[in-house]
Formats: sequence, C-alpha cells, structure tokens
Amino acid sequence: MKISIAQLNYHIGNFEGNTAKMIDAIKLAKEQGSDIVCFSELATCGYPPRDFLEFDDFIHLSDECIQQLCAYANGIAIVVGAPSHNLDPKGKNLFNSVYFLADNKIQFVQHKTLLPTYDVFDEYRYFEPAKEWNVVEFQGKKIALTVCEDIWDVGTDDPLYTIIPLDEMQKHNPDFIINVSASPFNFEHAHARIHTVRANVARYQIPMFYVNHCGAQTELIFDGGSIVMSGKGTLVDELPYFEECIRHYELTDVVNATVNSEQPKNKMTLIHDAIVMGLKDYFRKLGFNKAILGLSGGIDSAVTAVLAARALGPENVRVILMPSQFSTGHSVDDALGLVNKLGIAHDIIPIKDMYDAFMEKLSPIFGDLPFNVTEENIQARVRGILNMAISNKFGHILLNTTNKSEMAVGYGTLYGDLCGGLSVIGDVYKTEVYELARYINKDEEIIPLNSIVKPPSAELRPNQKDSDSLPDYDTLDPILYQYVEKRQGPQDIIDMGYDPALVKRILRLVNINEFKRYQTAPVLRISTKAFGMGRRMPIVGKYLS
Amino acid sequence: MKISIAQLNYHIGNFEGNTAKMIDAIKLAKEQGSDIVCFSELATCGYPPRDFLEFDDFIHLSDECIQQLCAYANGIAIVVGAPSHNLDPKGKNLFNSVYFLADNKIQFVQHKTLLPTYDVFDEYRYFEPAKEWNVVEFQGKKIALTVCEDIWDVGTDDPLYTIIPLDEMQKHNPDFIINVSASPFNFEHAHARIHTVRANVARYQIPMFYVNHCGAQTELIFDGGSIVMSGKGTLVDELPYFEECIRHYELTDVVNATVNSEQPKNKMTLIHDAIVMGLKDYFRKLGFNKAILGLSGGIDSAVTAVLAARALGPENVRVILMPSQFSTGHSVDDALGLVNKLGIAHDIIPIKDMYDAFMEKLSPIFGDLPFNVTEENIQARVRGILNMAISNKFGHILLNTTNKSEMAVGYGTLYGDLCGGLSVIGDVYKTEVYELARYINKDEEIIPLNSIVKPPSAELRPNQKDSDSLPDYDTLDPILYQYVEKRQGPQDIIDMGYDPALVKRILRLVNINEFKRYQTAPVLRISTKAFGMGRRMPIVGKYLS
Repeated sequence: MKISIAQLNYHIGNFEGNTAKMIDAIKLAKEQGSDIVCFSELATCGYPPRDFLEFDDFIHLSDECIQQLCAYANGIAIVVGAPSHNLDPKGKNLFNSVYFLADNKIQFVQHKTLLPTYDVFDEYRYFEPAKEWNVVEFQGKKIALTVCEDIWDVGTDDPLYTIIPLDEMQKHNPDFIINVSASPFNFEHAHARIHTVRANVARYQIPMFYVNHCGAQTELIFDGGSIVMSGKGTLVDELPYFEECIRHYELTDVVNATVNSEQPKNKMTLIHDAIVMGLKDYFRKLGFNKAILGLSGGIDSAVTAVLAARALGPENVRVILMPSQFSTGHSVDDALGLVNKLGIAHDIIPIKDMYDAFMEKLSPIFGDLPFNVTEENIQARVRGILNMAISNKFGHILLNTTNKSEMAVGYGTLYGDLCGGLSVIGDVYKTEVYELARYINKDEEIIPLNSIVKPPSAELRPNQKDSDSLPDYDTLDPILYQYVEKRQGPQDIIDMGYDPALVKRILRLVNINEFKRYQTAPVLRISTKAFGMGRRMPIVGKYLS
Repeated sequence: MKISIAQLNYHIGNFEGNTAKMIDAIKLAKEQGSDIVCFSELATCGYPPRDFLEFDDFIHLSDECIQQLCAYANGIAIVVGAPSHNLDPKGKNLFNSVYFLADNKIQFVQHKTLLPTYDVFDEYRYFEPAKEWNVVEFQGKKIALTVCEDIWDVGTDDPLYTIIPLDEMQKHNPDFIINVSASPFNFEHAHARIHTVRANVARYQIPMFYVNHCGAQTELIFDGGSIVMSGKGTLVDELPYFEECIRHYELTDVVNATVNSEQPKNKMTLIHDAIVMGLKDYFRKLGFNKAILGLSGGIDSAVTAVLAARALGPENVRVILMPSQFSTGHSVDDALGLVNKLGIAHDIIPIKDMYDAFMEKLSPIFGDLPFNVTEENIQARVRGILNMAISNKFGHILLNTTNKSEMAVGYGTLYGDLCGGLSVIGDVYKTEVYELARYINKDEEIIPLNSIVKPPSAELRPNQKDSDSLPDYDTLDPILYQYVEKRQGPQDIIDMGYDPALVKRILRLVNINEFKRYQTAPVLRISTKAFGMGRRMPIVGKYLS
C-alpha cells in the first residue's frame, strides 16, 4: 500500500483555490501509484475559519468541495479534513471531521474528539466532540483516523481531557494511524510534535502518518514539518518546514524503517523563515504585494525591513526616514546604509514642520505645561500619518516594527509607531531581535553594525535612551517571559531571584497597557504565547495594576 | 426561611473591593434576619476574568476571598460564585462553581455544567464541566444550586448541550433553585431571561432565585434585573436594571405569590441606560474621570457627548471642534449649540495649517496624483492627533464616536476618527443612533435638531454625503443586521428581497474591513452581536471578499 502526504498551503474561505490545489495533488498521487492521499485538517475551508463556521452558506461551500473531491476518489482514497453536520438536535451543529473518500463517495467520517480551546484555539466554540470511534477498512488494512489535538493528550503529565480517542480506536486493532493537523508554529513546536507522535506510536505500536498544514493565516503560521513514523518510533521522514511538499511512502518501507531522518532545527532559522512565510502569505492572500515602513536607524525597523525584502522582494519594499530635531545624525546614516544594502526605495521627510504646526495650535491650550510624553507622542503620530498617507496613495501595507518587549510594557505610541497592518516582530523579544539581526548578518553585514551595537533609543527627546525608563532588556525580557509565556505570578517570579519592586513595576506596566495591545495590528506568532488572539486579558481590571 | 439577593457591581481582579462589598451585604442581610444571602457568578474575582484565570496567584486570591466570607457565614448561609480546583489530574484545572458557606465553612460546592463558549463567552477555555449533581440541605430545605448557563438549555428549540443539569438535580427533589449569573446585557436579553426562568420553573414546578451581576467590565455590560419567580411562574420580583440592589424575600411569600411584578422595558431606555453605565464603569474602574471627544456637528458625536455628560457629569467632558476647509458653517454652529446646552468645555482648532504642512511635504512624493481617500484620511488623522494630544496632556480618555453601520462597512479612518479608548455607540446602527437622539430629545431639544435632520456627511471633501458611497441607512442597516447578528449568507439575504449586487457589495465591504475593526477600541455591547470579542473573523480570508 502506498500513501501520499500532501502538505499544502490553504487559504481560508477560498474553496475554489483549495479544491483545485487538492485535485492537482490527487492527480500527482495517482501518477505515483498511491493508494491513499492525505490532506490536512479543515483543508476545504482553511484553518482557522473562525466565525465563518457559523454561516450555513460557508459550510455548504465546504460540503460542495467534498463532493468535488469525491469525483476524483477513484483508484485512490482521499483523506481530508472538513466540517461535518451534527444531525442530533442536541449539542453544537458541527463536527470537526476527517473524511475518507473512496469509490467516488464518502465511505467514512470520524469526528475530532479533543477540541483545543486554549491559547489561539476556539474549537469548542464551533464543534461538538466525537462520542463514537471507529476505524475504516481499506484494501485489507484498518486505519485509525484522527484530527490534530486527538493525539496530543498522550505523552503529557498534565492531560487536558478525560478521554483518549485512540485508546477507543485501538479496540478495533488498526494497522496504522493517520492524523490530519493544522498545528500552528512556535519555535519550540517541532520538538514537541515529534515527541507527541513518538509517544503515540510507543503506546499503540503502529505507524503514524501526520499531515500538517503549511502556510500562514493572518497571525498564525503553519509550518508543515509533516511526519511519518514507524510503529517502533523511527522517524522515517519529516517533511520540509515552511514549504508545500507532496511525498509518497510504501507502507512496508515505513513499517520496517530503521533510519531516522530528522530536519535540523535552529531557533533563529525557524523564527526567520516563519516570519518570512508569515509576511509572504499575509500579502499574497490579501492581494497586496508592496510594503512600506518607517526606518529609524534602530534595530527593530532594520530587521523588519530585511524580513520584508526577503518575503516580498526588495523592489516591493519602500521605507520612509522621518528624522526629528531629536534624531541623531547616525540614525539617518544607519538607515541609509541599510537602504543601499537592500536596494529598496526610500524617502526622507523631516517631521519638524508638521510637529511645529501642531504645537502652534496646541500651545494656547497647553500653556506653561512642561514637555512630556504628549509631545513625544505627537512626533510618533506625525510619522504614523506620513507612513499611512504614502501607503494609502500607492497601495502599500504599512508594517508595524514594534518588538515584543515594547508591546509588553507599552513602550510605544498608539496611532504612532504602533500603526501598521501587520506586526512583524511583535512576538520577538528585544534580546531575540538582536539575535535575529546577528543571524541575518551571519555571512555579511546587511544590517549596519551600528544599528546593532548602539544603545536603543526612541529619539523623542534630547539624548533619550530606552534605559531611562526601562531596565536593561537582559533583565526585562526574562521577567516578561515568565509572566507572559509561563503564566507565573509576581511571587513566583520574585522567588526566581528578581528584585521585588522591579517585578511589580514590570507586571503593572504589562497590565495597564492592555488597552494599547487591544488596538495593535495582528502579530505574527512565533512563540508559545503571542499577544493577540491567544492572550485574552481584561482591560478594565485591578489585578497587578 | 428568608432569602436575600445581592445584585452587586464587582470589579475584575479587585478581590479586596469585591470582598468588602459582599461583607457589607452580608451584614445588611443579617440585620434583616435573612437565612441565606446570594451573590452572583464568579463574584470573588469579577466576570469575565479571562486569562487571569490561568494564574495560580489569581485563583489563590479568590480562595482567600472565600475564606474571608466563611468568617461571616454564621447565623446566615452564603451562596457565592467562584472558581474551584479540579483535583482530578485529567481535564482542565478549574471549575466554575457556586459555593454554599454556612457555620463558618464551605458546606457544599456545585460546579457549572454548561460552559458557554460562543459569542463573548470562552468558558471551556478555562473550566471543566461538572459531572456530578447534588443539592444542599439547609434548615430542612433542599436547594438546587446552578450557575448561569446551566438553566439556559431549557425552553429552547435548539439545545446547545447534551445534558440538562437541573434534570439530574431534580432526582434529589429540591425545594427551590438558586441560579448565580453573570449574564451580559443586550437590548433583547431581559425578555429572554424571563422566558428562560419561566421555562425552568414550568419544568420543575419549584421557585427560582436568579441573581445577576450588575456593572460593566470593559465592553460587557451586566444589567442586573435579578429575578424571583414562584414555582407556578409568577414573576414575584424583578430587580432594577443598571443599579446595585439588595432585597429580601420570605420563601413562603414567594411560593404563594400570585401578582406579577415586571419592570418596563423600552428599547431606547435600555440602550441609553446601558451605555451610560458602560461609560461610568469604564472610567471609574480604570481610575479616570474625564472624557474628551471630537465634536463634528453630526449626530454620532452629539449623541456620544450627551451620553458622556450623563455618565461622567458635564464638568468632566471636553469636546474639540476641528473644522477643515470642507466643513460647512452649520457644523460648528450645531456643535456649539450642543456645547452650550450641555455646559461642557470646548476648544476650536481649525485643522488647515496642519493638513497643509503634511501636504507640502507629501506633494513632491504624490506628484500629480488626484485628491482621493488619502487626503481625506490625513484630515481625519490630524484630528486624531489633536484629540490624543489634549487627552495625553490633561489625562482624559478619548471617546470613539463611530456607529455600528460605519464600523461594519469600514466607513471611517483607522488612526483618525477610529481613535479612542472606548467605542461608545459602536454597537448602535446609524438608524438606531437617530432613535437614540430622538429619545434624548424627548422632553426638550438637547441635541440641535439640525444635527438630526441634515444628511449625514464626513465633510472630508467638498459637498460630500455618506450617500455618495453608501446606500441609505434604512437599506444598509437591515442588510448588516441579517449578516452580522443573524449570520445569514448572501443568498439568504437576497431571498429576503434585497438587490443582489448591493448585498454582495455590502457583505464584501464588511469582510474586507475586518483589519480596521481589529484595531478599533472595545465597543460597549448592547446587541446580540457586537463587533469585538464576540465576533471573531479571519482578516486573511477569501469568503465574500
């Protein structure tokens, strides 16, 4: 028996495109003599479809897609994820299902049991969990079909669910497992995925074919890295990361495999490649191709510009240099150094005249009140208007260049430097931005060294440094990591050896700035806990604030 | 037996404040000779605590609050909602529970069974559902304790769950039901609530004491309106809407009651009072008291200004009039008319100089390209900067004045008129804004009549009218309502008799403007489907776009 894994890049709601893509893969698998071709979770409609699932019309389009695929299910079986209807009047109206199509019709449907409803996941919002478990028989083999999370409660010390669906299917003695997934990337996820697949094959002693989605959908990046593992735990194959790929496997080869074939996994390579794919798909799937951003001479906008140039091509990236009276001379020099290195378009627009025009109108109202964050914000917002104006006139998407450390403590101006349609490095801590810059420069100096080594500054008042109002990022970032990613409370973090007053000050800053993050662009997610849909905090609250 | 209902306004994470408030109510109930005093769902920590529930520290503070309440549980029993710990290693770590405290200790805990995970609710994200159901015995009576949603699958044609917890409790023959709720307002909800309570007492033939939360938490407004109903369906009492209230009931009086006592429910009164409470609590709970907004002379900002003045007092509201070269003379006159009527502070800042300063810098880049939405956006964004600058300097919160129709179709400028910390009327369709204006003017002309009767215009180009680019609001709003609230697809709406091309154009506008709503302030929710946390749509999608 020959099994094909099609690791494809779907587009939410693009039924026509997704169906055509799957039909091409089916044809290819047929040419290779495959008996089964496997697509990923909710492949018909793309993942995550979110509240589109509440529209009957949307589900109907997915049903039609399944019917179209049935027409190609001759001489080959098709395994594909799609929503299905719950005919019981009780419970939610839909299941998240995996279909088995053969002989031009739907032969079997298994529903997903474990519905992730944490972090970025909302599946219980839409789906009823499975209450029956079976296997499908095909060409003398029994196949256990599972959907993504169904395999993830094995191999963990803290099970999130009370049932393990494969334990139920195991009663029917399956020969192998297929798992159709849409499992979003974080830079620690690839290891976790291999661990989980291995824990399952160790438990059931049968091979698993794990098919992941590959492509970005707004903030979520699906990295591919599909897995074929023997019943003895041999990693027979690990498909590429961040690219579409179709591969074919003889089942007997998989059963007997003894050689592990694992992709290298370097944290900065993964983050870099993930963000490039995230940018590429955000633009392509929205029908845009040109990006604009403000280039300050600092490291955040420099890294963002490089990633944009790699994702979209340097000819599609335009940067605006907007020096103020507080900008240092080297800022423009550093920015121009990068412009020349990348070969991207640029404009220089000093902001003083516009800033002065605002201050002239506001000074009768402000009276003798001293210069403070208000005037800093006006500068940042003048830049925001300029970026948006050029973006509006020429059809660019403005990229937000804020890093995760700033996002966390609110060190940024709403409607100013927080403008932008997509936050490129908003899930990358400042210390990791430095690592990423060094990774980009590993073979040659692309980002001017001065942008990397100079002390970070917003340059919104004379001689300003980030360290005037924030601790060093080497201190700040680990505290933020414990609070944001690890859900540690103040005392837990203090017990790790951090200064109590500092910990309380930082956690308070995170919490009182929730209102800013609420209005910030979607953030490309590269960690286990990004700001945005996966972190839901009250704005009006009094906890640690 | 005497039972007290304490309908109180909690504050998320303010354990100290919430506990003190409950202790005051317990003392009052004791003075009245009550045997039981009832508080609402998650009263210790406030509702919805969202991801704060993932912090052990946060749960620990709630546990401490329960211990403090136990100290007062002598001579009276206390019924209170709070999270509790799931000691089984399997499943989620928490339950959403109702505690029964008596004789200074926890006598009984019943967990919530039905965990709403739709619209604004995310409860399965945090909680494990109950799998055991019991009643508590107290002073010879058996009491069925339920939490909010537990009673909501009765009396519906489309049950969302597969179990009805009160059916299980009924096996123990309870004498009455207590339901602790945190059920957010929408202008149709009060009727639904009475219907649901009545369906439950009809099914079990015993009285119900339904205790709701009263107060706003960011976008969610909890309206109170707690209910006491006899086993025969008599509405013995309905507590006030939008205010805290503690009342006491003799159980025998409730059992024997024959007179219905129902609050009047007028749609515009409810919306008006809900928004006023939403504003009041947003400011008070964040520690602010002053609001600022841009006053254009149009109806949206006029209605917003009136609501703000009523919530915060006219002395705490400041408006900025920012005419452009495209503003008509009557705009400033209409705005000043309202300023004088309300007695609020105002400034007039013509925006031309700042607009010109931008255009001077941008014209070399824009070249001969014609005036378009770019220049309109610059005007709106100059106003955004001015509003934010004064807000930053003097410590106001800027109010967003966008209505739901504009929000839906993207008729607004991101970082311009979409600025603001809170969207006051973002869940009110334009046709409803007119109704609200007439309601405000019912006794005297507060909003200048001209603001109500003139054709709506953004005044961003000469002689501009909303109707240049949008259908009349009388046509637009019903289409939006069907798509947004009713989840109807394009064909369903066309089948209602609307023009197919118009329906497709409107639905496309809604979908392609998701990116704007993503970055807009939280919206005070007054309908069954508001933009924000209760409506989760992909930005990158190709459905109807």
